Amino acid sequence: MAKVLEQATTTPYTTISGRPIEPLYGPVDSASVDYARDLGDPGQFPYTRGVHQTMYRGKVWTMRQFAGFGSASQTNERFKYLLAHGSHGLSVAFDLPTLMGRDPDHPLSLGEVGKCGVAITSLADMETLFDGIPLADVTTSMTINSPAAMMLAFYILVGEKQGVPQAKLAGTVQADILKEFIAQKEYIYPPRQSMRIVVDMIRYCTEHMPKWNSISISGYHIREAGSTAAQELAFTLRDGIEYVQWCVDAGMNVDDFAPRLSFFFNSHSDFFEEIAKFRAARRIWARTMKERFHAQNPRSWMLRFHTQTAGVSLTAQQPYNNVVRTALQALAGVLGGTQSLHTNSLDEALALPTEEAVTIALRTQQVIAHESGVVNTADPLGGSYFVEKLTNDIEAEALEYFRKIDAMGGMVPAIERGFPQREIQEAAFQFQKAVERKEKIIVGVNEYVMDEKPFSILYIDESVAEEQGARVKQLRETRDAACVDRALRELKRVAGTTDNLMYPILEAARAYATLGEMCDALREAFGEYEEPPVF
Amino acid sequence: MAKVLEQATTTPYTTISGRPIEPLYGPVDSASVDYARDLGDPGQFPYTRGVHQTMYRGKVWTMRQFAGFGSASQTNERFKYLLAHGSHGLSVAFDLPTLMGRDPDHPLSLGEVGKCGVAITSLADMETLFDGIPLADVTTSMTINSPAAMMLAFYILVGEKQGVPQAKLAGTVQADILKEFIAQKEYIYPPRQSMRIVVDMIRYCTEHMPKWNSISISGYHIREAGSTAAQELAFTLRDGIEYVQWCVDAGMNVDDFAPRLSFFFNSHSDFFEEIAKFRAARRIWARTMKERFHAQNPRSWMLRFHTQTAGVSLTAQQPYNNVVRTALQALAGVLGGTQSLHTNSLDEALALPTEEAVTIALRTQQVIAHESGVVNTADPLGGSYFVEKLTNDIEAEALEYFRKIDAMGGMVPAIERGFPQREIQEAAFQFQKAVERKEKIIVGVNEYVMDEKPFSILYIDESVAEEQGARVKQLRETRDAACVDRALRELKRVAGTTDNLMYPILEAARAYATLGEMCDALREAFGEYEEPPVF
Repeated sequence: MAKVLEQATTTPYTTISGRPIEPLYGPVDSASVDYARDLGDPGQFPYTRGVHQTMYRGKVWTMRQFAGFGSASQTNERFKYLLAHGSHGLSVAFDLPTLMGRDPDHPLSLGEVGKCGVAITSLADMETLFDGIPLADVTTSMTINSPAAMMLAFYILVGEKQGVPQAKLAGTVQADILKEFIAQKEYIYPPRQSMRIVVDMIRYCTEHMPKWNSISISGYHIREAGSTAAQELAFTLRDGIEYVQWCVDAGMNVDDFAPRLSFFFNSHSDFFEEIAKFRAARRIWARTMKERFHAQNPRSWMLRFHTQTAGVSLTAQQPYNNVVRTALQALAGVLGGTQSLHTNSLDEALALPTEEAVTIALRTQQVIAHESGVVNTADPLGGSYFVEKLTNDIEAEALEYFRKIDAMGGMVPAIERGFPQREIQEAAFQFQKAVERKEKIIVGVNEYVMDEKPFSILYIDESVAEEQGARVKQLRETRDAACVDRALRELKRVAGTTDNLMYPILEAARAYATLGEMCDALREAFGEYEEPPVF
Repeated sequence: MAKVLEQATTTPYTTISGRPIEPLYGPVDSASVDYARDLGDPGQFPYTRGVHQTMYRGKVWTMRQFAGFGSASQTNERFKYLLAHGSHGLSVAFDLPTLMGRDPDHPLSLGEVGKCGVAITSLADMETLFDGIPLADVTTSMTINSPAAMMLAFYILVGEKQGVPQAKLAGTVQADILKEFIAQKEYIYPPRQSMRIVVDMIRYCTEHMPKWNSISISGYHIREAGSTAAQELAFTLRDGIEYVQWCVDAGMNVDDFAPRLSFFFNSHSDFFEEIAKFRAARRIWARTMKERFHAQNPRSWMLRFHTQTAGVSLTAQQPYNNVVRTALQALAGVLGGTQSLHTNSLDEALALPTEEAVTIALRTQQVIAHESGVVNTADPLGGSYFVEKLTNDIEAEALEYFRKIDAMGGMVPAIERGFPQREIQEAAFQFQKAVERKEKIIVGVNEYVMDEKPFSILYIDESVAEEQGARVKQLRETRDAACVDRALRELKRVAGTTDNLMYPILEAARAYATLGEMCDALREAFGEYEEPPVF
């Protein structure tokens, strides 16, 4: 097959990640693929074509819309709306104070309470958040990291109050602190102390919560920070390796906990690069678990993941164009074999989504599931010369990052040296330059710009902050203060030992200690992290 | 590769056309594909992977939005809006009286003038329609069939008045009368007389308009009438064979006219079935032209096509879901290698599109072209086990229809027997049953139904009809009546000979004979068609 001469053009034909793409791919490009070794049927090692034998015939992906704003009762209403309109699972977005482990009356919480997510200050708020939603019937994802253990404790206790034992709870708390240091920057404690909390959580979940995904190792925020597709893949999976290594080093058996590790990726705009990324992810993880960690249980080899369409790709300009972007990105996630999917709302570049906007986003998933026919067969792109070559290329690029990070002694030392941070900064800078030079066109932003009418958005007023402040004040007055004190002292004491932090956190949560109080106890024990400057 | 056992389910896994899909496709499914024989590089016989060597790197598809409503001046404004916002080509939607060859003051035109398209009654309206739009700089598609020759004449004369010779005009008039008998039912004259007009037009274009696509052989309306994907493909290509055969029988050399035949397909909801349909279309046409008609010129082998997303798939319920449907369908068209694309507007199930709605539709194409990366490489799905198998299967199904229609003596006799009409009726009936049984879910229609707010639509009032009536009255009073009479008599006379009808049509159009008057002249000569009952 002759390679085609490219017409002269000023635009380089690259993916959004800057990867050069050939004008044509043919049999020679996928000739090195050995079906049994490199692809396998769905449900077979190395799972390139999917983790389940029947894929979406057995069960379509979980439609899980990330939601949260204002107070716990406001978000509870939104959850019920989503479930009533066909959402399968819940996904909690927390506000910034909650993510940073600060109570609403903390000075740094000013102006942020309930703004970008729901304010959850104590077990009392969590009870309100899930009021009338039986935890036995839903799966819940909670996107929170430094205070992940506390949020897990709140959830377990809500289950307990509903009569649902923790062994029956299903879902995940993100708890992926490494990507916070790399990209999202919502950390509290230093890396090594943070890793210890994660290991304690994984151990606790392994021992008590067989249906719970102990962690959701996330590339989403790495990508949103401007990484390439291969960097998202490499840093996320290398984070996964780091967690596995720390758990193994802590004496855990890999096959006891690895089946409950889960992942979370971005589905960005470059359609085929994303599909190839998802396929490569499964193959790399399966081989890593088998060959590097000698896992024996096939479930330890399977990379299961949630996908969210790319928030960063949405534009404030001409917001209805975002429906198109999200539909294409969602389709890529599905063709990539995701287990769970969040589709962004068209107004997310402007504000938290309105009910109308989240409905269109959910319908986007339903149209793909019911009308497009893509659920009929597993890995429909398998065998495509282009997709197989791209899968190989992205895998190779990720493995090269693995080698570099291994040479630095692992992800924690690499982060401490600022390596992934610098790589992402450079990629983000290159993309920004390409947009400025109009080598990359963003419709409505650097081309096809037009005058627009104002667009109505959801507005969260300051009354939420006042109400949340009043609620926590009342809580402090009515709870058993001595019991809270005792629990917090115990939490701080355990932090100085190698015992599992989950137990004292559960006790403090049960006593209605606030999130801020628990996080502060650990702040005193662990100190707070300050990022070294990155050059 | 072991075949997977399907989980018990009440829903059969079929495409929207009812084609059963396997749970998994692997190397065995595409093993019969010989790259050089069955695929070829883009730009090489049999063009399965695309007609151009560089595909969208050389030039992205023409963004051609079908538009037309009210008066010629209203539509002229819409055309200018579309061109100003990045549309590349024009596509004229005519109102029902125009499509039926009736003047606005004809009793059957009552209530229809300007409603579903623009009212074009004479050359004067055509001059207004393209006022300020240099025909040398745009390509124009006109969707009209029985009166296609008259519309072509109007366009040629507008070019002449703008100083653009007909040899430089680019675009197409649909002029595909066979699919009117099969599906769309907007015919005037009986099939054989209608075919004679088409042959005359093809000959005229071949001799005088080297850049003009003499016909646009259309599956769109066949599909909209409820056909399956394979029926759309089979009947459209078999119509194409019929036109080629009639031209050859009329003494034309196939390589003189075949390079300027063009096609027009629907891009419906089943993503992969549509992509496979487009790929199969190119392969079947290339082989047919080479083997059946012994065409020597590679350009005679190439199937070039326009695509429109599926109007029939859009729902009046929850109209923003239509943005999602259209985006996915448009992507299928692009991955299928279309040369030109119309994306439907979200409100088209309710009314003619508003300016806001057509803008989102156009932006949909621009997001695909600029942000999704799918233009970077030709035929990105080539080699996919599933897509290659589906391409083979759809090709085989279409060829089986060819055999049946050939056995009936060709498409004209098949239509006279009601064969394609019955096949489509049956397919439409089966789909309707599947929707009623909820085997096929249409989001917002038979599932995920909700209460909705009213939606604002474009309203065409009766003043358009009055104005158009007044314009034609004034035209009749001011033109040279004797000259018109003479021209119409000459048109009727030529209809009784074997001379080319295009010449007297051009003369009548130049004398400002109206469309209705010209069509009536041919009605007197040819008679009108009445469909035999179909059982």
